[in-house]
Amino acid sequence: MEPANVVIIGGGFGGLSAARALALEPVRVTVIDRANHHLFQPLLYQVATGALSPAEIARPIRAILRKQWNVNVVMHEVVAIDPVKRQVQFKGGSLQYDYLILAAGARHAYFGHDEWESVAPGLKNLEDAMQIRNRILMALENADSATDPAEKQAWLTFVIVGGGPTGVEMAGAIGEIARHQVAPDFRRIDVGAIRVMLIEAAPRVLTSFPEKLSTAAGASLRHLGVEVLNATVTAIEPSRVVLRLGNEVQELAAKTTIWAAGVAASPLGKSLGVPLDRAGRVVVNRDLTVPGYSNIFAIGDMAGFLDETGKQLPGVAPVAMQQGPLAAHNIARAIRGESLEEFRYKDKGNLATIGRAAAVADFGRLKLSGFSAWIAWMAVHIFFLIGFRNRFVAMFTWAWTYFTHDRASMLIFGQEGVGEEGANEKRAAGEGCPGKKIL
Amino acid sequence: MEPANVVIIGGGFGGLSAARALALEPVRVTVIDRANHHLFQPLLYQVATGALSPAEIARPIRAILRKQWNVNVVMHEVVAIDPVKRQVQFKGGSLQYDYLILAAGARHAYFGHDEWESVAPGLKNLEDAMQIRNRILMALENADSATDPAEKQAWLTFVIVGGGPTGVEMAGAIGEIARHQVAPDFRRIDVGAIRVMLIEAAPRVLTSFPEKLSTAAGASLRHLGVEVLNATVTAIEPSRVVLRLGNEVQELAAKTTIWAAGVAASPLGKSLGVPLDRAGRVVVNRDLTVPGYSNIFAIGDMAGFLDETGKQLPGVAPVAMQQGPLAAHNIARAIRGESLEEFRYKDKGNLATIGRAAAVADFGRLKLSGFSAWIAWMAVHIFFLIGFRNRFVAMFTWAWTYFTHDRASMLIFGQEGVGEEGANEKRAAGEGCPGKKIL
Repeated sequence: MEPANVVIIGGGFGGLSAARALALEPVRVTVIDRANHHLFQPLLYQVATGALSPAEIARPIRAILRKQWNVNVVMHEVVAIDPVKRQVQFKGGSLQYDYLILAAGARHAYFGHDEWESVAPGLKNLEDAMQIRNRILMALENADSATDPAEKQAWLTFVIVGGGPTGVEMAGAIGEIARHQVAPDFRRIDVGAIRVMLIEAAPRVLTSFPEKLSTAAGASLRHLGVEVLNATVTAIEPSRVVLRLGNEVQELAAKTTIWAAGVAASPLGKSLGVPLDRAGRVVVNRDLTVPGYSNIFAIGDMAGFLDETGKQLPGVAPVAMQQGPLAAHNIARAIRGESLEEFRYKDKGNLATIGRAAAVADFGRLKLSGFSAWIAWMAVHIFFLIGFRNRFVAMFTWAWTYFTHDRASMLIFGQEGVGEEGANEKRAAGEGCPGKKIL
Repeated sequence: MEPANVVIIGGGFGGLSAARALALEPVRVTVIDRANHHLFQPLLYQVATGALSPAEIARPIRAILRKQWNVNVVMHEVVAIDPVKRQVQFKGGSLQYDYLILAAGARHAYFGHDEWESVAPGLKNLEDAMQIRNRILMALENADSATDPAEKQAWLTFVIVGGGPTGVEMAGAIGEIARHQVAPDFRRIDVGAIRVMLIEAAPRVLTSFPEKLSTAAGASLRHLGVEVLNATVTAIEPSRVVLRLGNEVQELAAKTTIWAAGVAASPLGKSLGVPLDRAGRVVVNRDLTVPGYSNIFAIGDMAGFLDETGKQLPGVAPVAMQQGPLAAHNIARAIRGESLEEFRYKDKGNLATIGRAAAVADFGRLKLSGFSAWIAWMAVHIFFLIGFRNRFVAMFTWAWTYFTHDRASMLIFGQEGVGEEGANEKRAAGEGCPGKKIL
């Protein structure tokens, strides 16, 4: 009989692990992604802060699946799914499927303040990372040449909104840059004047971690000179951020704001017309199928799945890497006419890093912070980084940066006048091409 | 007495070597560049073909000159020079100078066909390299998914205009990709159908090399499957290139064309109102000063300087790296009231590489081609590559690629629908933002 067609939307952790798990099954697999590469998102903040190059955390999906003969990779942006026709539609064509795995991940969300996106970019793909890197470096260039003290200070004030892992890692890395990169290279900048502010609405950072580790993370951040504010953001403008702390309103003159406060699942879920949760995730059955469609699975950041305690599983790689294989396994069982199995998450732990040589790690009973957690963090990330070459270069680069404080790729390119006087205003007004040359 | 102000425009090979040569002189040096980084241009084609990452061939100028205390680095785009006011003008300000060194380099030139630039990009900075890399990779993606045979063939036809070192190196690298990258990763592309065509108006490639080596280079190119055509380009359109071979006119259906046929010096020379040569270079005196201005020097690609035989010096790094120090030396002599010295070029040799493991090298009496030349080429480029880390990573990456044929950074990002159906047309029509997200 004809092998079944399995279409996987998304080449992230979930999609790749599902494709691999189907290697020996009697199916034809198509992985479709709008990018040509898999991205190791946990290290994306290191590209955004000039520590790693894109090529060190991204690899073409075609190359990763090169040896798997029942897989075909195509680069298209899926615009809609027709579950009745069993069709995935993209610009200029469509694909038939017998089984579909939704693994398109999430984008950052601005909670009804989309106008903030042009002023305060989020960090989800390589473009985001390059844009944030350009903005941070241009802010330093502009601060160095600024003569008006107030303007200089605004260029030296960095606001990170959101105290989750991404926000903490970004704030820590910018703190590192302020401490070690600026003094030797920007002689007209007073390092003491640099302010890195992390804004978190909850009373502590890393709320997904035990309180003890949150406290340790907060301490490490303050040690790096990062100011942690328990506040909510009420307005973000090109040169100004407005906060509410309790009843008191505070204004910050800041020209660089980075958004790490929230994500929403890929809008593809909507086109199915099935129930979604608050974050736009498809509320899946215990076997990861989409209610009403036994041949459609949703995994990773796109899947609304509650654990035994009724808590939504976190949007992290391990969840996607465990759900992908189960979805694949269930497809194989369905083809054999067997009943599907339920997903159970094995929580291997939780890690976040804070600048150089500090991190927090929650391995259930074992809780680490500081240097030991940082070593654990490095080991885990190196282990999961795809491809020997990437592992080796990333490890070498980290060692190099650790000992020299010299970041590998503090380059500005590929963006029209990022951070230029008035560029933020232009962006806010939607003028100019965000990606055009600055040279 | 007050130290003299020396302003150097350009952080390339010429500008950096001049700045360094002034380290111990009683001067205040300002290096001004529109980019924040020095670029190792001889390896730029490797970024354009996915072999190296930008960070492996570029380094912030501030970091390079970090330890030199009499240097200040600023990132601005110089728009004009006022030799009477002794002023360098940039957007939002100006700089006073006592001595000025023009080292702004060159851009590619289209000989009065500027409309070709949007269709056939040249290769001079990191944006160019990223754009060309995106176009080559998107052409393969589009060829893979194209169903119409004619369209597929047009996506598989790569035209490189210009048989100088850049053109030869680009053609060789694309030939490599066609031979080793495509087959395993793009299963719906017939490798045999890929055409890489190098167009050179002169009867042989690498005219700056001895005929014997040109012949060897041509042979290596053909060995890589590159077709070398002795023809002139009369038209370049998004999906079509028109050539004249002798009296015969030939049309190529090609969707990817790369320009490597000519350069022109930075337009800054013009604003001086002094004689320029055909390529826009400032025709300098033997001591590298600009006629009529004993305090202005022009070096590298901006300097029109004829050798003993009356031939213009080539636009290569060694010339700039020898002229920079002499300009610096002459400024020091001028300050001491001594007479200036004349520039004499010590030709250390000439190198070009053709794909993997083949090159040509002309060290005067010693002429090499093939593998030995390639080893020489690698040694020389590694030696001059700035920064230990860059050297190490580049060397490792080359070894890796040599043995695995696996290119390090075959990534598509940061460019709006590059190569998408109709994207070339859009670009030609000036629509869209060349640098916007494709994701």
